[in-house]
Amino acid sequence: MSTLLEQQAQGNSAIGFMLIKSCDKKISSKKSPYLDLMLSDKGGEIPAKLWDYSPERHGEYGPGDIVKVKGTIDQWNGAAQLRIERIRPKLSTDNVTMNELVAGTTLPAEEMLTCIMETIASFENKNLAKLVTCLVEKAGEGFLVNSAALRMHHSMRGGLIYHTFSMMQAASALCDVYPFLNRDLVMAGVIVHDLGKLKEMHYAPTGLAVEYDPKGSLTGHLIGGAIDIALTAKELGIEDECVLLLEHMVISHHGIPEFGSSIPPMFPEAQVVSTIDKLDAELFEMTAAMGNVEKGCTTSRVFGLDRKLYRHGDDVTYRLTVEEE
Amino acid sequence: MSTLLEQQAQGNSAIGFMLIKSCDKKISSKKSPYLDLMLSDKGGEIPAKLWDYSPERHGEYGPGDIVKVKGTIDQWNGAAQLRIERIRPKLSTDNVTMNELVAGTTLPAEEMLTCIMETIASFENKNLAKLVTCLVEKAGEGFLVNSAALRMHHSMRGGLIYHTFSMMQAASALCDVYPFLNRDLVMAGVIVHDLGKLKEMHYAPTGLAVEYDPKGSLTGHLIGGAIDIALTAKELGIEDECVLLLEHMVISHHGIPEFGSSIPPMFPEAQVVSTIDKLDAELFEMTAAMGNVEKGCTTSRVFGLDRKLYRHGDDVTYRLTVEEE
Amino acid sequence: MSTLLEQQAQGNSAIGFMLIKSCDKKISSKKSPYLDLMLSDKGGEIPAKLWDYSPERHGEYGPGDIVKVKGTIDQWNGAAQLRIERIRPKLSTDNVTMNELVAGTTLPAEEMLTCIMETIASFENKNLAKLVTCLVEKAGEGFLVNSAALRMHHSMRGGLIYHTFSMMQAASALCDVYPFLNRDLVMAGVIVHDLGKLKEMHYAPTGLAVEYDPKGSLTGHLIGGAIDIALTAKELGIEDECVLLLEHMVISHHGIPEFGSSIPPMFPEAQVVSTIDKLDAELFEMTAAMGNVEKGCTTSRVFGLDRKLYRHGDDVTYRLTVEEE
Amino acid sequence: MSTLLEQQAQGNSAIGFMLIKSCDKKISSKKSPYLDLMLSDKGGEIPAKLWDYSPERHGEYGPGDIVKVKGTIDQWNGAAQLRIERIRPKLSTDNVTMNELVAGTTLPAEEMLTCIMETIASFENKNLAKLVTCLVEKAGEGFLVNSAALRMHHSMRGGLIYHTFSMMQAASALCDVYPFLNRDLVMAGVIVHDLGKLKEMHYAPTGLAVEYDPKGSLTGHLIGGAIDIALTAKELGIEDECVLLLEHMVISHHGIPEFGSSIPPMFPEAQVVSTIDKLDAELFEMTAAMGNVEKGCTTSRVFGLDRKLYRHGDDVTYRLTVEEE
Amino acid sequence: MSTLLEQQAQGNSAIGFMLIKSCDKKISSKKSPYLDLMLSDKGGEIPAKLWDYSPERHGEYGPGDIVKVKGTIDQWNGAAQLRIERIRPKLSTDNVTMNELVAGTTLPAEEMLTCIMETIASFENKNLAKLVTCLVEKAGEGFLVNSAALRMHHSMRGGLIYHTFSMMQAASALCDVYPFLNRDLVMAGVIVHDLGKLKEMHYAPTGLAVEYDPKGSLTGHLIGGAIDIALTAKELGIEDECVLLLEHMVISHHGIPEFGSSIPPMFPEAQVVSTIDKLDAELFEMTAAMGNVEKGCTTSRVFGLDRKLYRHGDDVTYRLTVEEE
Amino acid sequence: MSTLLEQQAQGNSAIGFMLIKSCDKKISSKKSPYLDLMLSDKGGEIPAKLWDYSPERHGEYGPGDIVKVKGTIDQWNGAAQLRIERIRPKLSTDNVTMNELVAGTTLPAEEMLTCIMETIASFENKNLAKLVTCLVEKAGEGFLVNSAALRMHHSMRGGLIYHTFSMMQAASALCDVYPFLNRDLVMAGVIVHDLGKLKEMHYAPTGLAVEYDPKGSLTGHLIGGAIDIALTAKELGIEDECVLLLEHMVISHHGIPEFGSSIPPMFPEAQVVSTIDKLDAELFEMTAAMGNVEKGCTTSRVFGLDRKLYRHGDDVTYRLTVEEE
Repeated sequence: MSTLLEQQAQGNSAIGFMLIKSCDKKISSKKSPYLDLMLSDKGGEIPAKLWDYSPERHGEYGPGDIVKVKGTIDQWNGAAQLRIERIRPKLSTDNVTMNELVAGTTLPAEEMLTCIMETIASFENKNLAKLVTCLVEKAGEGFLVNSAALRMHHSMRGGLIYHTFSMMQAASALCDVYPFLNRDLVMAGVIVHDLGKLKEMHYAPTGLAVEYDPKGSLTGHLIGGAIDIALTAKELGIEDECVLLLEHMVISHHGIPEFGSSIPPMFPEAQVVSTIDKLDAELFEMTAAMGNVEKGCTTSRVFGLDRKLYRHGDDVTYRLTVEEE
Repeated sequence: MSTLLEQQAQGNSAIGFMLIKSCDKKISSKKSPYLDLMLSDKGGEIPAKLWDYSPERHGEYGPGDIVKVKGTIDQWNGAAQLRIERIRPKLSTDNVTMNELVAGTTLPAEEMLTCIMETIASFENKNLAKLVTCLVEKAGEGFLVNSAALRMHHSMRGGLIYHTFSMMQAASALCDVYPFLNRDLVMAGVIVHDLGKLKEMHYAPTGLAVEYDPKGSLTGHLIGGAIDIALTAKELGIEDECVLLLEHMVISHHGIPEFGSSIPPMFPEAQVVSTIDKLDAELFEMTAAMGNVEKGCTTSRVFGLDRKLYRHGDDVTYRLTVEEE
Repeated sequence: MSTLLEQQAQGNSAIGFMLIKSCDKKISSKKSPYLDLMLSDKGGEIPAKLWDYSPERHGEYGPGDIVKVKGTIDQWNGAAQLRIERIRPKLSTDNVTMNELVAGTTLPAEEMLTCIMETIASFENKNLAKLVTCLVEKAGEGFLVNSAALRMHHSMRGGLIYHTFSMMQAASALCDVYPFLNRDLVMAGVIVHDLGKLKEMHYAPTGLAVEYDPKGSLTGHLIGGAIDIALTAKELGIEDECVLLLEHMVISHHGIPEFGSSIPPMFPEAQVVSTIDKLDAELFEMTAAMGNVEKGCTTSRVFGLDRKLYRHGDDVTYRLTVEEE
Repeated sequence: MSTLLEQQAQGNSAIGFMLIKSCDKKISSKKSPYLDLMLSDKGGEIPAKLWDYSPERHGEYGPGDIVKVKGTIDQWNGAAQLRIERIRPKLSTDNVTMNELVAGTTLPAEEMLTCIMETIASFENKNLAKLVTCLVEKAGEGFLVNSAALRMHHSMRGGLIYHTFSMMQAASALCDVYPFLNRDLVMAGVIVHDLGKLKEMHYAPTGLAVEYDPKGSLTGHLIGGAIDIALTAKELGIEDECVLLLEHMVISHHGIPEFGSSIPPMFPEAQVVSTIDKLDAELFEMTAAMGNVEKGCTTSRVFGLDRKLYRHGDDVTYRLTVEEE
Repeated sequence: MSTLLEQQAQGNSAIGFMLIKSCDKKISSKKSPYLDLMLSDKGGEIPAKLWDYSPERHGEYGPGDIVKVKGTIDQWNGAAQLRIERIRPKLSTDNVTMNELVAGTTLPAEEMLTCIMETIASFENKNLAKLVTCLVEKAGEGFLVNSAALRMHHSMRGGLIYHTFSMMQAASALCDVYPFLNRDLVMAGVIVHDLGKLKEMHYAPTGLAVEYDPKGSLTGHLIGGAIDIALTAKELGIEDECVLLLEHMVISHHGIPEFGSSIPPMFPEAQVVSTIDKLDAELFEMTAAMGNVEKGCTTSRVFGLDRKLYRHGDDVTYRLTVEEE
Repeated sequence: MSTLLEQQAQGNSAIGFMLIKSCDKKISSKKSPYLDLMLSDKGGEIPAKLWDYSPERHGEYGPGDIVKVKGTIDQWNGAAQLRIERIRPKLSTDNVTMNELVAGTTLPAEEMLTCIMETIASFENKNLAKLVTCLVEKAGEGFLVNSAALRMHHSMRGGLIYHTFSMMQAASALCDVYPFLNRDLVMAGVIVHDLGKLKEMHYAPTGLAVEYDPKGSLTGHLIGGAIDIALTAKELGIEDECVLLLEHMVISHHGIPEFGSSIPPMFPEAQVVSTIDKLDAELFEMTAAMGNVEKGCTTSRVFGLDRKLYRHGDDVTYRLTVEEE
């Protein structure tokens, strides 16, 4: 089924489920109440108006609600706008979930989580396996659906687990190339490195980060993540050196102090976690930016990479999502 | 009683208790064994030789031992050297302690600790008082006798508690000037801000830091200190906001990221702790450096301040220790 | 008496004295002349319109004038606007001064000046007292009413003297804690450190800085301040070392070169002046920013501090002004 | 066969082939001529003396010569020294080559080269294959035996090809993880990225870099390498976009400008080349440095990484050479 | 003849030749097609509207076209706007060229080129003369008419050759002052230093740079320029050291790495080229910025210089163009 | 006449006038007093010993004294050393001055001063001429004989005036190229820009700077120089804008804040003074460093330029001194 916004090209009238991103009650110049909304589905987002709004007749709505709307798409000031004719809340009988309305990864989060849990189960160091398992369990649902950043890389539903999963593949490959690396440590570092973000930010029901959490900002996700490791290890009674090593990999994963770690990576496994974190984020942002330009062209300056990019003539489709094989 | 090194000016023969800083067994060009030592007391340090050394006759010695020596002070290559004639270990009946042999603060550490504990007891926030009390108790003896740095500011026996005590006086004064400051928070931040150093470094029996602790280096004393706060709060069952605020004050006390904190001070009390930490260290180093030059002269470039200093003509004696009043 | 802007919440009709911040004659779409003004009082500022303006009937006005206005407050484009019905200049018989219309310190500037002059009078070094007295006298009225900055800290009427007065209290407290400090020098440094700003900026009749002075920019207030010290000392025939020390404290008070001083503080008193200048400004900006958010929230990034702030749950009212005790 | 230096532990008398690193004729205090040499083999290096040296009797020698020596190893000033009793040049009939005397990779350079040439042959872009083949051929013998740096990473015989080969393995693994990468480009970039070093430095017969080449310094190996690509492409008549892309990957491989590239990587393949170049060098230096300390200890500050490293307790042997499998 | 825009002050009706900078077909609120243009001549630029546009009647137009227009200048939203009454393309018989419509240098580009070619002809090093001649010839027309930058210094028609010509005069003068400079090298460096810009940017028919060229961005004009030197020298069979020196002067002319050169100037001639390039650009921007303010005033912060400027009271007319003498 | 040190190559015995750089009385291992001196002439410097020293017989000596010595030059520890046989102070009848013993400029300082005074006399702005004349007169003898730096550029006798003179020639040439420059201002800026150094450093009788002056360090030569301008202008009663402009040129001549000016050049003349100051110093250091290497070679890293230099094959003699023409 094409999304409501994909219908836009097909005609003026449209119907479908959408997600409310913002919703304000206002008064028109004719003194009549109306709803001013921003709606979104996988096709993007569109401003919408519900004129002559009456709570009794149309119902009450807020950000994060899924609604079914019918309306007409106009051009206003050079931009598309949806004039809503009918609106109702999603019913429990409607066969639609957040996954269908929010752009995210094509590989299901549950499959990625299964792969992650299998990796943990394979650790030789059973204390480390126990510790990492507990940390992932505490992260809970948020690890499955939340994004990895407020802006910039992997700011999509499921972005955090997808970033983690993608890094695991790269990390595993590098462990084959450099046999002196302790695979358990590298994998553990990758899996927990960004779990602190779940406390550092507030997430909408869509899984998208909407703002920094005030308390989370007081430690940041690096130090906050390390504190959680320490507390969890204590709960589990684990006093292995691996606890300290895992704390260090989290603290140091932003690399040298200029980039936000006050402690740089001090052993090879920490260096690998830091390097592939940066590389995975850079490649994500690069491919996203290049999807917007033609071959042979440069992008505008990409925030977060602080440079322009060049899309060469190679026959590559820049995909932001993992393909099932 | 003048120290052995102070006798140096009075004649060649000297007797007294000294501390062994290093001790190596060597073979002379005449194939005879001898001990090559570095000895110190409050007057400074002096290289020493014990010729024709026999463990059976003279005993075995190592760094940190207190010994009684008798010998002659010679000039050798333009520097004083002690030729040891008699040596023996300190006996339990000898009325001498580390405090008499190592330069430190004139105000007894116990008195400073009493003052600190009284301050904690006066906190309105009883959870905070409980938490800080527990952290100070865990720090134990080290808080009383250890130095505050490997090199640079307050690298003397008792330097850590003296630095803390001196900051408390400044912090208290500023709380009077800026009444919006929460005095409990400021004082708590000052008292615990450097406790992480006790794990970050190894200390000699003299209380002087001798090297960084490898494990301590993996988190540093800022993050290590914050983790200890989190673990202690959990033990005590304290879930107050003050736990997070205290963690933040420790993490951020090196100020802006360029100076080593990855998180800058985010509320006024954290800013005050950071500012007076820096000021107290700077004034300590300034007065120490200026003690070496005449009025109207500049010092050489001071490591840690990265500048030269000027000693003006004011009639001030630069004292490095707190005077009892 | 509540200010005109405070009446805003009480009804549409308002009357009171206000300050003209800007004033432009314009022509309406109906070809009728009108005055477009920005008016302010202690409650804030409000755009205002005087329709069908006739100089003969209403009088001529310009920025800095105090006027009495009567009008109606409307909402226009979501913001309040004052439609003026009557306007007249302040008469000499009106019992209103700039102090009542411009937000400033609650402690009268004259009281703060008295305290400053008493401090100078108490200097042991009489040459220094003479020099500082002369510098303050030359600063004149501007020292009493002008702000301390164009934007950022203490940009309110009387901000400069209030910043100076607040620093004096902190400086005095630190002189008690660190007895090796020469109190005369520290106090002199505090009092004159920002006098150069009076030549570096242009001030409105309100005392608020409106722009940098072109000539003042050629030296800046640090070097410009030092030159004024040198010239004044020469006039007074003072050749004491204190002249050079005072020049140095002014030149170096922005601290290390990265922050704008080409010469860093080279003796303890200069360091103290620089440190408390920075701390006083930071605390001022912190408390001002936190006044805008709820407990448990973070502010947006604060210009000048380059970070977000967290307002903790402590029961503090952030006051920007000194309370009489 | 154990090397001469490995015999050192077995007794005072030693015989074997060694490489002359430096060689000076001097006059002893007894007015007798002698040779003062520095000799090396895979076991390290040792100063040596040939007393009563006579060119007629002993022959003439210079740096880079391979010689057979017989002598006695003494302790002098706390360090081993070889007193030469007999010396002669390597004869063509002696079964010894530079590879046996200089520490290098255990995987033969020829095998690595074969693997590199096979990779090039597999390129889909035949113009790129032709260009890279020609560049490798021009590099010649130097690519097989020279080191990758003057100091720091891969400064061993064959270090350049080993660094290249190791990066190829990592690059290939990342191409599997990120399918949007053009494998030909990544591999080409890896293979040529450091070829400019062969002109930027002077190499001893051992393959070790001894100093920067003056002319090479005028462009550096990044720009010098790019110019060679341009010239070679012109010779071969290749005008494909791949020429420019290859030039860019070489120019940008030091990453962001702060680290020495004036142009940052502008497409994903360039980013991958830059990232794995840095990672491969960092891991090489990390493992080399950690080979010098015990488990649970930190190294001293590592030049080039600008930090201390921690060797954790994991049971890993840090090997600097590739193992045949 | 005054330009159309200079007629603006003389009355509402205007006629003249103008250059089309942008041209869009739009539909008015009355559903009628119109052209929305930006037109320019030496007097500046003006938005223009051609209502009721009909391609058949008015013709088709695009950016870069020269047209003759007749129209009326209105005020709209506080800005001038041209309502076009008649428009036609420039005919071959019209006596108008780009030079008359675009602000540029008053000294004809051809005269500057003649002077440059004479300088080259005077080189003692004939290989260098041959190389530089060939590079200038390849640059062709673009060297005569294009600007030197996208924004900032010398962004006017003919800006590149004017910047080069102006630097030549300064360079020649410095060669007189410092006789150890090789005049041939300095002059060659000046002449070719920015030729790479012709490939780094796209230029409009006006000679003004409109955007960076994607391929040119992959090397930048420094390295791109050096590659062109290498290729040209190879074509000409020149293997002189001067080729490498010229490459170096181009690579290093942005000075120290912080300012964009990865290789700093390594001989005096390269330093001189770099210094006068920077000075010529700075003086151009300074005089341009100061032309906008009165004597005794400061400019706003100048982009590219990152500071405000002060216009002193000296009786100077800031001219941006070279005067014929 | 060849200097004593130039005789060194001609034989062991030498006689001539030399300058004492340092002079210490010591006791030999045979308990006999001797003088340990460092002597210098234009040929360089040499350590010297006067054995069996007797003040009565040989006289008393100190640094800065000119002496006539006769002695033998030995090799000791691989370095030349002078064994003094006879020594006496320079007599008033000896026809030798400091100029003959200290390396300096070949152009006499008096001639350079004459040229400078003529330039000042030619100023159109007579107030400026008066002010600059007075500043040069106050500088006195020091301006003629002192060096321009402690280390680095122009650290030779007469270096300050030579640096000034050389800059004047370059400045004059640039005023011809850029006619909008006010020649009076540029020349005045050049002449006074470094006069503050005469107070910032202590100079030996040789004119060489030996250390920073403590008081001079409190303001530095930039601000110290500006203060002297302000005081002198006041003495002369000059209130012209040129006073402020001259102060600014001195304050800003180290360029952007990163290089030591807290105020950057704000008008073209200040930029020119700053640029040619830097260029003149760089060229001086470059030519000095390249005099030490062969053509086709690189120097070692040059302190102050922070890079290596390349000496190209051009037939240039690097001269450090101005030639008379």
